[in-house]
Amino acid sequence: MRQEKDLIGVHEVPDDVYYGIQTLRATENFPITGYHPHRELIRALGMVKGAAAEANMHIGALSPTIGKAIVNASRELIEGRFHDQFVVDVIQGGAGTSMNMNANEVIANRAIEILGGKKGEYFKVHPNTHVNMAQSTNDVFPTAIRIACLNVAQDLVEALDRLRQSFEDKAQEFDGVIKMGRTHLQDAVPIRLGQEFASYAHVLGRDLKRIKQATQSLEVMNMGATAVGTGLNADPEYIKNVTERLGAWTHMPLRLAEDLVDATQNTDAFMEVSGSLRTLAVNLSKIANDLRLMASGPRTGLKEINLPSMQPGSSIMPGKVNPVMAELVNQVAFQVQGNDFTIALACGAGQLELNVMEPVMVFNLLQSLDILRNVTRVFRDRCIIGITANTERCREMVENSVGIVTAINPHVGYDVASGVAKEAIVCGRSVRDIVLEKGVLTKEELELILNPYEMTKPGIAGASLLKG
Amino acid sequence: MRQEKDLIGVHEVPDDVYYGIQTLRATENFPITGYHPHRELIRALGMVKGAAAEANMHIGALSPTIGKAIVNASRELIEGRFHDQFVVDVIQGGAGTSMNMNANEVIANRAIEILGGKKGEYFKVHPNTHVNMAQSTNDVFPTAIRIACLNVAQDLVEALDRLRQSFEDKAQEFDGVIKMGRTHLQDAVPIRLGQEFASYAHVLGRDLKRIKQATQSLEVMNMGATAVGTGLNADPEYIKNVTERLGAWTHMPLRLAEDLVDATQNTDAFMEVSGSLRTLAVNLSKIANDLRLMASGPRTGLKEINLPSMQPGSSIMPGKVNPVMAELVNQVAFQVQGNDFTIALACGAGQLELNVMEPVMVFNLLQSLDILRNVTRVFRDRCIIGITANTERCREMVENSVGIVTAINPHVGYDVASGVAKEAIVCGRSVRDIVLEKGVLTKEELELILNPYEMTKPGIAGASLLKG
Amino acid sequence: MRQEKDLIGVHEVPDDVYYGIQTLRATENFPITGYHPHRELIRALGMVKGAAAEANMHIGALSPTIGKAIVNASRELIEGRFHDQFVVDVIQGGAGTSMNMNANEVIANRAIEILGGKKGEYFKVHPNTHVNMAQSTNDVFPTAIRIACLNVAQDLVEALDRLRQSFEDKAQEFDGVIKMGRTHLQDAVPIRLGQEFASYAHVLGRDLKRIKQATQSLEVMNMGATAVGTGLNADPEYIKNVTERLGAWTHMPLRLAEDLVDATQNTDAFMEVSGSLRTLAVNLSKIANDLRLMASGPRTGLKEINLPSMQPGSSIMPGKVNPVMAELVNQVAFQVQGNDFTIALACGAGQLELNVMEPVMVFNLLQSLDILRNVTRVFRDRCIIGITANTERCREMVENSVGIVTAINPHVGYDVASGVAKEAIVCGRSVRDIVLEKGVLTKEELELILNPYEMTKPGIAGASLLKG
Amino acid sequence: MRQEKDLIGVHEVPDDVYYGIQTLRATENFPITGYHPHRELIRALGMVKGAAAEANMHIGALSPTIGKAIVNASRELIEGRFHDQFVVDVIQGGAGTSMNMNANEVIANRAIEILGGKKGEYFKVHPNTHVNMAQSTNDVFPTAIRIACLNVAQDLVEALDRLRQSFEDKAQEFDGVIKMGRTHLQDAVPIRLGQEFASYAHVLGRDLKRIKQATQSLEVMNMGATAVGTGLNADPEYIKNVTERLGAWTHMPLRLAEDLVDATQNTDAFMEVSGSLRTLAVNLSKIANDLRLMASGPRTGLKEINLPSMQPGSSIMPGKVNPVMAELVNQVAFQVQGNDFTIALACGAGQLELNVMEPVMVFNLLQSLDILRNVTRVFRDRCIIGITANTERCREMVENSVGIVTAINPHVGYDVASGVAKEAIVCGRSVRDIVLEKGVLTKEELELILNPYEMTKPGIAGASLLKG
Repeated sequence: MRQEKDLIGVHEVPDDVYYGIQTLRATENFPITGYHPHRELIRALGMVKGAAAEANMHIGALSPTIGKAIVNASRELIEGRFHDQFVVDVIQGGAGTSMNMNANEVIANRAIEILGGKKGEYFKVHPNTHVNMAQSTNDVFPTAIRIACLNVAQDLVEALDRLRQSFEDKAQEFDGVIKMGRTHLQDAVPIRLGQEFASYAHVLGRDLKRIKQATQSLEVMNMGATAVGTGLNADPEYIKNVTERLGAWTHMPLRLAEDLVDATQNTDAFMEVSGSLRTLAVNLSKIANDLRLMASGPRTGLKEINLPSMQPGSSIMPGKVNPVMAELVNQVAFQVQGNDFTIALACGAGQLELNVMEPVMVFNLLQSLDILRNVTRVFRDRCIIGITANTERCREMVENSVGIVTAINPHVGYDVASGVAKEAIVCGRSVRDIVLEKGVLTKEELELILNPYEMTKPGIAGASLLKG
Repeated sequence: MRQEKDLIGVHEVPDDVYYGIQTLRATENFPITGYHPHRELIRALGMVKGAAAEANMHIGALSPTIGKAIVNASRELIEGRFHDQFVVDVIQGGAGTSMNMNANEVIANRAIEILGGKKGEYFKVHPNTHVNMAQSTNDVFPTAIRIACLNVAQDLVEALDRLRQSFEDKAQEFDGVIKMGRTHLQDAVPIRLGQEFASYAHVLGRDLKRIKQATQSLEVMNMGATAVGTGLNADPEYIKNVTERLGAWTHMPLRLAEDLVDATQNTDAFMEVSGSLRTLAVNLSKIANDLRLMASGPRTGLKEINLPSMQPGSSIMPGKVNPVMAELVNQVAFQVQGNDFTIALACGAGQLELNVMEPVMVFNLLQSLDILRNVTRVFRDRCIIGITANTERCREMVENSVGIVTAINPHVGYDVASGVAKEAIVCGRSVRDIVLEKGVLTKEELELILNPYEMTKPGIAGASLLKG
Repeated sequence: MRQEKDLIGVHEVPDDVYYGIQTLRATENFPITGYHPHRELIRALGMVKGAAAEANMHIGALSPTIGKAIVNASRELIEGRFHDQFVVDVIQGGAGTSMNMNANEVIANRAIEILGGKKGEYFKVHPNTHVNMAQSTNDVFPTAIRIACLNVAQDLVEALDRLRQSFEDKAQEFDGVIKMGRTHLQDAVPIRLGQEFASYAHVLGRDLKRIKQATQSLEVMNMGATAVGTGLNADPEYIKNVTERLGAWTHMPLRLAEDLVDATQNTDAFMEVSGSLRTLAVNLSKIANDLRLMASGPRTGLKEINLPSMQPGSSIMPGKVNPVMAELVNQVAFQVQGNDFTIALACGAGQLELNVMEPVMVFNLLQSLDILRNVTRVFRDRCIIGITANTERCREMVENSVGIVTAINPHVGYDVASGVAKEAIVCGRSVRDIVLEKGVLTKEELELILNPYEMTKPGIAGASLLKG
Repeated sequence: MRQEKDLIGVHEVPDDVYYGIQTLRATENFPITGYHPHRELIRALGMVKGAAAEANMHIGALSPTIGKAIVNASRELIEGRFHDQFVVDVIQGGAGTSMNMNANEVIANRAIEILGGKKGEYFKVHPNTHVNMAQSTNDVFPTAIRIACLNVAQDLVEALDRLRQSFEDKAQEFDGVIKMGRTHLQDAVPIRLGQEFASYAHVLGRDLKRIKQATQSLEVMNMGATAVGTGLNADPEYIKNVTERLGAWTHMPLRLAEDLVDATQNTDAFMEVSGSLRTLAVNLSKIANDLRLMASGPRTGLKEINLPSMQPGSSIMPGKVNPVMAELVNQVAFQVQGNDFTIALACGAGQLELNVMEPVMVFNLLQSLDILRNVTRVFRDRCIIGITANTERCREMVENSVGIVTAINPHVGYDVASGVAKEAIVCGRSVRDIVLEKGVLTKEELELILNPYEMTKPGIAGASLLKG
């Protein structure tokens, strides 16, 4: 055990750990979820600390010896060497101070080692004086959050685009499958299965666009804001430099906020991103619901399509296979919506110069990004690309339907068509038979009008008859 | 125009209105929703003011002349004579002060008239000194909210109980209708339609219990708390008396809070009630979803039941009828859930001695109670009681199903049964045929086992075979 | 009474009303909120019907006589002549069919009158055959919703920009007011009041941008989609024409959706818009909270600023004035967040070709737009522009603070500065005195470093000392 | 590697793992959160499986050899020996089937070992035929969830009661501390700090009551329901027996649901429990907000109380200490509210005989229970019990306040008192001075009336003067 000291007093710290007294206190104060920080957040902190050390060397505030040691330790962090040293809980008081200090302490101790010292010899490299030089949790933490989220968001965007593409592919594959369109879960008029899948592709395309746009808000950083955004203790040259260097460390188009007070105080960018994820979640869930409905059966449901069988569906009912991948999507969608609510509550709790609720915000935002990326991948790979259509069944349902009566509407008027429909439903007979029996239209006219494929395109089926 | 004066200055008030300067300012300050206060809230304010005047007379603080005029004016309020004089917006700043002052001013001016004076002669009856004597918005408004909510809640409870009963009735009516049970929207094992409807009745029964219990929290009042719950300026004898008299005015089992500071500061009772409404909403919505699914068709859906036709379903598709009453239930459920969220946000915004967000809270809570009561009534009258079953179709689907293979499970083991099921699905053949063909069971054994009615009751169908 | 007939049967309709049997049935089926349709939605329906009639005349499907009568009746609707004839409830089953039919019936009957007929003589102008020609609720209603929302959104954007500007103005006015910055509600380092107000302006500027962008999604229409987006019964030339003409009727940059099936089925645009309103709401609420906190007092709070007095604050406490306008903002924010939740639930409930929950969606979205516009206006006019600063009190608090110790940090190191801070807090003495007494810095050095105004700008206060 | 086979096909399984093919498939299908099942849920599954094996032996359906091996394996599960074998993700499709199969497979393989066999020799003990005998995921999983939740809820109740008690203790300790009461964050009338803390204790007392009551709903089990609640394949004697034995295994007052169909289909009990946790969360958050506000400072805030210092508050501002424990409470409250939203969405997604969204439901519910229990403990231990009052500062603020003018209200009337208040505020003078100067009351009268302690109790301060 080594002894460390802070404002509160002295505390023993195990010899072999890289974190120090402030991290340790945080673990004692916040034993809440048991979850440790996201690996991308740890990596992002490494990038911020490395860039800041470089900038501090650049302006001559930090000696090259110490500065280089900090830079090297930061690189090791980014490579994942010290993830097990990040032990503070994801839900923590203090607006991320404990998370920032965890990084400061780990980097300081590692830098001390690099310089030949022993952990805890903070006179060599001090977590606050050196590693945190010209920084505050209030600029470091929001910046690191943004970098971490951007990283995961990029993966999500790629996975989502592939999912979108797979719906496009299915749209082409199913373009010839005529099926009954339904509104209110009631038979409406014919549609092609391919049109439905194209529609899924298109709404996901909008989600892609929304997410890309929203995440651009994350590219705005507040490094140099220090405590309240006024930039106290941050040299203007340092501010300029750290932003540039951070771009290099992260390979991201980061830029400095125009108003650092605003950027320190407001968290609307996180709500904006979460909002775009929520919309995606709701859309994915709707698609999953549709697929589950169309795949219902095998004998007593709609059974228009087949989802790939991924696992036995029941511990008691032999042969049962369930739409588990679609159900997974629904549940992820619920989780993302709940996370979004938590994020909105946290964003609404900012006060004056700071929103201290950022830890719970980033925990939820990163989780939403993670699980959406993950589910998007498996939904595509283990469900969408394997979907097949029951073309014959789809066709039969259209032919038996009453909804096709809509097509004769322009030819005979709404009231006559209503009468035919009512009789078809009540008597259980086909629209075709009743129309012919009543002499409403001739057989030849009917052939032209009741062409299902024609009905799935704009225009009046049998329009030539009207003009005749 | 008459001139009135308050802390802020002088303002002209139309001669013919019963409200005064403070109400008028509120209409200028809060032009938000355009909605006026709920009639039950106005009535409840009348009850509170009447009871307070009596209690103030009782302790000798208010002269009988003035007191009786206030009591009579309050009665007229309760009868609905001045509802058009309540012109403040439902969303208002000031924690209900404007609403309370609206009542104080209307009652004062009406009392002045009763005493032969002219509106605005507040030296005769003063809105604050006399009508609001020993009261604060902070005890009057929460008390009035509670009375108003209790009133509407009582109607909801009655309507809900009738709805529940109609599900019970249908459960009996449909007890003999065997249909396919579905889990994951996939065929499972047989169930009776009556069992499903009984289940709806039972979950609504729990909702009834929950709502009744939650609303009991509303029976706790804080009259006499005055500004912050300490009871400053409220004589203990007055406090005792006003609570008793309020019981008489309202015919409700009201009781005084044990801790008036707590009762003035906390609004958890509203969240509790709203939470119980939310659970009801979610349950109703699930039932509505089930009904819409079971009634899907007429040709290309499940079509197990028929919902009564209430109106033409389409402006373009002749003969289409939609499940509009069920869709109404879904939408009310969404509204109630949104309202509940608003209420929770408002409840979370209390600070120190008061929660100033009560106006938006009560607006949403009363709306939730209203629309649930209303929808519960029409859902019963215009949907549930008219539902009919397509018994024959239900029976056919059971017989064609693969899910009945579950019943042979205990007789042949999970793996053999799985094989039968798989073959049935792949080849499109019946379970019965495959079992016989494979010689897994004899025809006689099958008869015993594959009895659909038996399958809807606890026990192993064909259990006698096992023991044999 | 006149007799009208539909698919369900015959129903009496009062002679003098312009709506017909289907509207009447809807009022009987949906007695839920008691609220009637939004005037902008009624007007938008008029625009859609007028444009459709023109397009139908254009392609020769509708006779000029009938067509012109419909166009004229539609214009009267837009002018507000028949708003009292829109009697269906805002929450209704049927995906807006009743709302569409209400418009069809009112316009048909008015067109009949224009042509010299009597209400109910639908052989002259038929609500479905003529007014609704080539239309479906499923294209008319979403289109009308979008136009209505765009109209109100435009007002909101203007009001919000004026509010933003008023914060800019105050930022300039308060640029010289030095005050204590606070994080975690704990004294941090100095900031200028003007910086805080600039920050409010900037976050609202982002909200403006977000709302403008989100509402662009509403400019995409699906006229011609008819029942399920396939365009059945809609002539391609009609589709092209109606979209163009609708642009003229609405003076909006409307465009046809590229995929009408998608546009008919998905409601993500409403969620997107509501999401942008939610973010605005949360930001406004945060600002309102800050103002309430800074104006707390008058004697026992922070009292850094004064909000204008708008009305007496208490019915029992003389002289009390409350921050009612800010509280109004908070409550509107809660309402908007609840509405957003309802909208998200409704959007998530789409099934296959349609989302039938649009009525509750549009009710909430229009309400959110309305109340945000309204509150934005009064918040500016009755609160923000009248705020004054208590400059002297702000200055005193900075000088008494411990937080200014941060500025000496770069000069003496974190540990020494911590010691000074701790002693200042424990002993209740000033940072200045302790620093001098301990000889940490000279008086001259302190003068340079502890300059509050310097502390509110980037850089190290007294940086020249470090370089010396 | 050993080979295992299921309905889908053959899959290799590592030799050393206790889980089997179905668990493995689930890990491949559901790589979502990376979180493994809650230990209490694993333990609960052990209890269910043990009790079921006993009941199956009791009715003679399961041989004692196999049955006892299953019972012993189940006991080992409960003791925590195989937690690392539970590898399915907390968010999973299939309504918990994978979780149930994970338990079935682990227990089967362990039982096989106990009987001297090798893992995978399922002819000895089969996961479905033996371990899952007479069970379905649809009764096992809901039952296990309930047991797990009841276990954690019990801990929460204990922790919450201790927290409530600590507020009671503080209420006594601070009973003599007179401070300014505030409404709308504006000075109102005096109150005692002890009254505020008592109020916190009382609202938490109601939360305790609500949680206890809500969790009683979890004591209702549906063992024997099997697939859809009809009890197919479950012997009535088995059903009776398994419920009794489960009571013994769990030491809980479990009882069988009266309607097993209802109990299998509806998840309202989880929403009910989550709703009670949400109300607690909102109340805790309000308390945390109050404490943060009262502890604001140290120099430029209210500083009425001191929260214990738990860790340094800033990486840049020396000496800063933040209210980290209270901020922790706020964030947990946000998380619980988000979780509650997810739970409500999942509960609303039930369809027909089953709600397949239970996995995400239980993940969130157990997390809410966990984090509330954890935060309740540390909030008490590391914050509440260490709070101290700044008695002198509280007293001074009361004496300087204007709000005490309320007490002279009954003696001089609202209008005169308003005038005094207004003058006090505008001129910055004391109420006392102005009253005396104006000759409104004598000095002796004032002494009686303006007694702060008297003002914190019901009644009119100086009431004797009125009667005189």
